[in-house]
Amino acid sequence: MTFPAPLRGVVPPVLTPLTPTGEVDTASLRRLTEHLVGAGVHGLFLLGSSGEAAYLTDAQRRTALKTAVAGAAGRVPVLAGVIETTTARVLDRAADAVRAGADALVATAPFYTRTHPVEIADHFRRVRAGAGVPLLAYDIPAAVHTKLPRDVVLGLAADGTLAGLKDSSGDEGSLRRLLVDPRRRAPGFSVLTGSELTVDGALLAGADGVVPGLGNVDAHGYVRLYEAAAAGDWAGARAEQDRLAALFSLTEAGDPARMGASSSALGAFKAAARLLGLIDCAATAAPQVPLDDTAVAHVRARLVTAGLL
Amino acid sequence: MTFPAPLRGVVPPVLTPLTPTGEVDTASLRRLTEHLVGAGVHGLFLLGSSGEAAYLTDAQRRTALKTAVAGAAGRVPVLAGVIETTTARVLDRAADAVRAGADALVATAPFYTRTHPVEIADHFRRVRAGAGVPLLAYDIPAAVHTKLPRDVVLGLAADGTLAGLKDSSGDEGSLRRLLVDPRRRAPGFSVLTGSELTVDGALLAGADGVVPGLGNVDAHGYVRLYEAAAAGDWAGARAEQDRLAALFSLTEAGDPARMGASSSALGAFKAAARLLGLIDCAATAAPQVPLDDTAVAHVRARLVTAGLL
Amino acid sequence: MTFPAPLRGVVPPVLTPLTPTGEVDTASLRRLTEHLVGAGVHGLFLLGSSGEAAYLTDAQRRTALKTAVAGAAGRVPVLAGVIETTTARVLDRAADAVRAGADALVATAPFYTRTHPVEIADHFRRVRAGAGVPLLAYDIPAAVHTKLPRDVVLGLAADGTLAGLKDSSGDEGSLRRLLVDPRRRAPGFSVLTGSELTVDGALLAGADGVVPGLGNVDAHGYVRLYEAAAAGDWAGARAEQDRLAALFSLTEAGDPARMGASSSALGAFKAAARLLGLIDCAATAAPQVPLDDTAVAHVRARLVTAGLL
Amino acid sequence: MTFPAPLRGVVPPVLTPLTPTGEVDTASLRRLTEHLVGAGVHGLFLLGSSGEAAYLTDAQRRTALKTAVAGAAGRVPVLAGVIETTTARVLDRAADAVRAGADALVATAPFYTRTHPVEIADHFRRVRAGAGVPLLAYDIPAAVHTKLPRDVVLGLAADGTLAGLKDSSGDEGSLRRLLVDPRRRAPGFSVLTGSELTVDGALLAGADGVVPGLGNVDAHGYVRLYEAAAAGDWAGARAEQDRLAALFSLTEAGDPARMGASSSALGAFKAAARLLGLIDCAATAAPQVPLDDTAVAHVRARLVTAGLL
Repeated sequence: MTFPAPLRGVVPPVLTPLTPTGEVDTASLRRLTEHLVGAGVHGLFLLGSSGEAAYLTDAQRRTALKTAVAGAAGRVPVLAGVIETTTARVLDRAADAVRAGADALVATAPFYTRTHPVEIADHFRRVRAGAGVPLLAYDIPAAVHTKLPRDVVLGLAADGTLAGLKDSSGDEGSLRRLLVDPRRRAPGFSVLTGSELTVDGALLAGADGVVPGLGNVDAHGYVRLYEAAAAGDWAGARAEQDRLAALFSLTEAGDPARMGASSSALGAFKAAARLLGLIDCAATAAPQVPLDDTAVAHVRARLVTAGLL
Repeated sequence: MTFPAPLRGVVPPVLTPLTPTGEVDTASLRRLTEHLVGAGVHGLFLLGSSGEAAYLTDAQRRTALKTAVAGAAGRVPVLAGVIETTTARVLDRAADAVRAGADALVATAPFYTRTHPVEIADHFRRVRAGAGVPLLAYDIPAAVHTKLPRDVVLGLAADGTLAGLKDSSGDEGSLRRLLVDPRRRAPGFSVLTGSELTVDGALLAGADGVVPGLGNVDAHGYVRLYEAAAAGDWAGARAEQDRLAALFSLTEAGDPARMGASSSALGAFKAAARLLGLIDCAATAAPQVPLDDTAVAHVRARLVTAGLL
Repeated sequence: MTFPAPLRGVVPPVLTPLTPTGEVDTASLRRLTEHLVGAGVHGLFLLGSSGEAAYLTDAQRRTALKTAVAGAAGRVPVLAGVIETTTARVLDRAADAVRAGADALVATAPFYTRTHPVEIADHFRRVRAGAGVPLLAYDIPAAVHTKLPRDVVLGLAADGTLAGLKDSSGDEGSLRRLLVDPRRRAPGFSVLTGSELTVDGALLAGADGVVPGLGNVDAHGYVRLYEAAAAGDWAGARAEQDRLAALFSLTEAGDPARMGASSSALGAFKAAARLLGLIDCAATAAPQVPLDDTAVAHVRARLVTAGLL
Repeated sequence: MTFPAPLRGVVPPVLTPLTPTGEVDTASLRRLTEHLVGAGVHGLFLLGSSGEAAYLTDAQRRTALKTAVAGAAGRVPVLAGVIETTTARVLDRAADAVRAGADALVATAPFYTRTHPVEIADHFRRVRAGAGVPLLAYDIPAAVHTKLPRDVVLGLAADGTLAGLKDSSGDEGSLRRLLVDPRRRAPGFSVLTGSELTVDGALLAGADGVVPGLGNVDAHGYVRLYEAAAAGDWAGARAEQDRLAALFSLTEAGDPARMGASSSALGAFKAAARLLGLIDCAATAAPQVPLDDTAVAHVRARLVTAGLL
């Protein structure tokens, strides 16, 4: 499909359901995809952090992406993360993703290695030129350990390299400065926040949409939030965001003495999706630690409080 | 005066004007104070980062605080930063501040040393008990290199230790989770954001007010922003915030190859205040690097664009 | 060949020479390999940071590794980095490396994602079990943004999961505490420092060897340093290390305003290797910035001072 | 006394013993000082991290320093930490310290605020000019969150501003590069490592001495280590360092779930000093958490193993 310019709305970073033996559960992914599209989301982002991209083999990434493309069936655009350390490796993943039918790609700055703004800009230009489909920059310093410089992003928006920015930096002050910069008005340039707890404020500030991990659990909630904001009903948007912010505490299900934050948060998203009947199995990829019964009970209680169960 | 419970509105972190030889310029501070109160601010925060507290001697801190207390003359409350590494040292500064007439104190977690949530909670309890006036916690990881744990803050709100939080963490997601927590409703507990670029979103989310360094330069703008939000005029609040976010670029006046971010930002705030006639001299405390003529011209241009000159 | 237990001596992290068009220059790599073996090194480490592993595609990684295995021809063991974000991806690279003839593998903790000591231990156990060849842990917080916990490493040494540690953490105090721990005496467990500037001290403290990036430029120097230490000639070891520490300043050839630290350091290593006739072309992989003539002249001057040119 | 140029040897960062009610225990400090001088140390460093400088009021700092100066009685030089956020505040502490009889001062870069190499250099020049006694730079990024740039330190050595460097950065590679730089040979310039676990390597590399917190517990051990190194007996130095590195595990006495690293390490040093009869009470300053009986038993066991009890 033609990629929207700009992309607007709710674009959940889709979970990758796994079977108990660790393979991609394509039936569950198809069901989840259908649920999300049915809830009114405006796009699907495969192979992001919530999709456990860092944990999936190249073959698993391809399987997940093809499944989602087939599920979306052209009703909404499918964006694919191409999470790799540097340019040549990203281009290999980009080729895979384009073959699998992705409508656009989402790439980070180089990571693992040390980098520089000049190199970051060159990286995105090479990826865009090599991939041949629209490219969004993914700003996620918690993973990449570099913050995308605002001037680099705006320069790449202005020269047409970037079709958008997914801002998961959590730095809302920097995002605001980007939003008020005249270069942000580059034709078709989309600014999406990945900060799922402050979407009302981001939309008030002029962001185009949101990529909420929690949208796997409550897609309807984020769609209502987006629609309230689009209608100028800021009190309504705030109330929806408040409810979702309270629901977000399900990510703290896991015991931090026994597991990392990824195990806890992704385990909780998947446990919630299973409790809601969206996927068959809540397994996360190794070496993440599975949630125990106490943790799953924590997740269930949060779903009840939020009116989802 | 009786400290408001909760404190609400615009509480600028007041600059400390200096003479060319580095002494506190009490006449300028008196003039600046009068200007701010006249603009309708709801309190004054002395001896914060914008007030160069880290650069002032104890004697200079006392002089600045006494000057502001006299200037406020009971019309608005005066909060005083008590920026010191650990408990006993904070208590010495607290005694100074109370003698100088502060209505409330603002303290950080221990810094320079390594600390722990248990120690942070004990620290605030000891400071509150020893100081005898309302105490706000100051969350400023850029300076302290620890983020105040949400549970610690909310526990100290619930048990009456804290009268408020000044959140300069820039972590708006964590702030939202605090705002939706039931303990945030502790009687009289005030939540103020120090993130001057996202005030509309913070107020929409339920914050009580803002402590904007840029409020030294455009106090009227922040008062209008607050009043628009209080009236539910979110489009108006957003427009005001957009203008102020663009104005904020004056903080980048200094050449990063020659000076640090504090030199540039505080130098720019003071240069702006001097250009606006609010203070006599734009000097910052050593070893900060003064802005050169090019940098001051940058500041002037931003003031013109923002309609202030 | 049988992997030494423990591995001892100088194990340079071999550069991956590239052609001007960015392909692996197998002839140069063969020449460099021969030079290193001829200089008396005790092993070759392919696909580490100095080998630009983060920049090479999987196909390029295989080509480089096969070339080095053929070049080593069983005279010294070949270790292969398997640099990937998490377990399943590392196992894919491990299978590639074993097929290409690697004698042992070198893996980091999970990166990009957030992790935990429990997960790190599980990760190494799964990689060791799946790979079927000796495994060394690679501690490189500058890239991975996690420090390998000493207790995790020592536990995995004691239970036979790890054949060694390559410590590029720069934390010599923590290394010393590991070296004096009784578990460090697990049979066959090798401790190699990647801190090429403090090898004399590390060997004095009981490390088994060193993995020096600068060893690509002066392999003879590191072999002399190791042999002096092995003979108890600490004054001689120190003098050699002092000379090498001065030589290391060639890594600062690049202008930090124009490029990152990787571009400068790897560019300088390659420029030096080219000036010494070890490789044909000094190109580094995109998006690293090439050194300009001034920078290459800086490298040449350091080689002259060190007596290498 | 005339300050040695350069200062060489073992310069323990002296603990500040406290009474159960939190006052400086001058009798214990006098006893500890006498013990250290008797053990053959070459200087005393008061009011450093091990001295809990960050926790002491200005009055307590003066009391501790005067007590140590009286105890040293000119037999060894007394260095005083002047731990404050920026220049004017450091100068106030410097005046106190000079009045109390300090032979030299030890200052960090500005902290709490954001700084810059240009500002750091200016800071040390102003402190040196204002204080009028020899000045050492204290590189302790764990506290200050800035690493002192090598070029700044060497420039200030060359121009006579600095009489020395106390390097507690833990970055032994950077230290080696400083030691091989010709500017390190500035007349009288002393390089002391604060890394108490790698002293043999640092002395082999040309450092002048060490400032070991653990020297409060085993001063004789560090004196033996220094003397072995001075005699070129590197095997002897290593054996002594190995024993001290094992002893250092007493710093992990405290439960990290209940207290911070400062509480645990300083609590353990003080518990050990009390068990050894050097001080009367092991109390640390608030809000540090006291060690419980289990933790003290851990400390005692380490002292027994090290042959000290």
